[in-house]
Amino acid sequence: MSADPTNAEIFENLRIELRSGCVVLATLAELRQEHYGYTLRKVLADSGIEIEENTLYPMLRRLEKQGLLLSEWREEDKRKKRFYRLSPLGKTLLAALFDEWDALQAALSRVRKGR
Amino acid sequence: MSADPTNAEIFENLRIELRSGCVVLATLAELRQEHYGYTLRKVLADSGIEIEENTLYPMLRRLEKQGLLLSEWREEDKRKKRFYRLSPLGKTLLAALFDEWDALQAALSRVRKGR
Repeated sequence: MSADPTNAEIFENLRIELRSGCVVLATLAELRQEHYGYTLRKVLADSGIEIEENTLYPMLRRLEKQGLLLSEWREEDKRKKRFYRLSPLGKTLLAALFDEWDALQAALSRVRKGR
Repeated sequence: MSADPTNAEIFENLRIELRSGCVVLATLAELRQEHYGYTLRKVLADSGIEIEENTLYPMLRRLEKQGLLLSEWREEDKRKKRFYRLSPLGKTLLAALFDEWDALQAALSRVRKGR
């Protein structure tokens, strides 16, 4: 019995690596408008970016701790919910990350075509 | 004195996270044709993807160990060089990763526009 990863596991790890930066970028971009976790996850999924709850919530807390997000507890429909939105620093970094994303996309497109 | 990361460090980490999957994808795509390390690094840089040597070489070894690349030592210009190219498994996974990339790109573009 070998402990080597299967081809499916190798692919899955590469896929996760490819997705992870995009997931952060999409989250920041969506939080240009305020959301609480549930609706954020829903609108991202509707756009084609599925995020597990146990990935999303730690990521939101990390991004808030880094100063990219602001959050606020508010009551809505008789329940306290934590609403998140992009901070001014988050806005600046989001714009810079989209510039990086555009450059990566252009570069990858050139490599893919074999120039 | 605080050990908190600066805003520049936070941005740099997000940038690296965004790049890392793309760098692997670009490397696999470029290795549809054979290269040794030096020329691979050069053609990727010419396309807009700069990779440090101490990132590239461990990545090539890892991808070969996972069966995505094949390599061969050959003499060229009186020097032994290690030539890399995509394996049949690598070709299959590259196609699947490009499908994933296309889906991510489309999703991110929808989020960015705010639908």
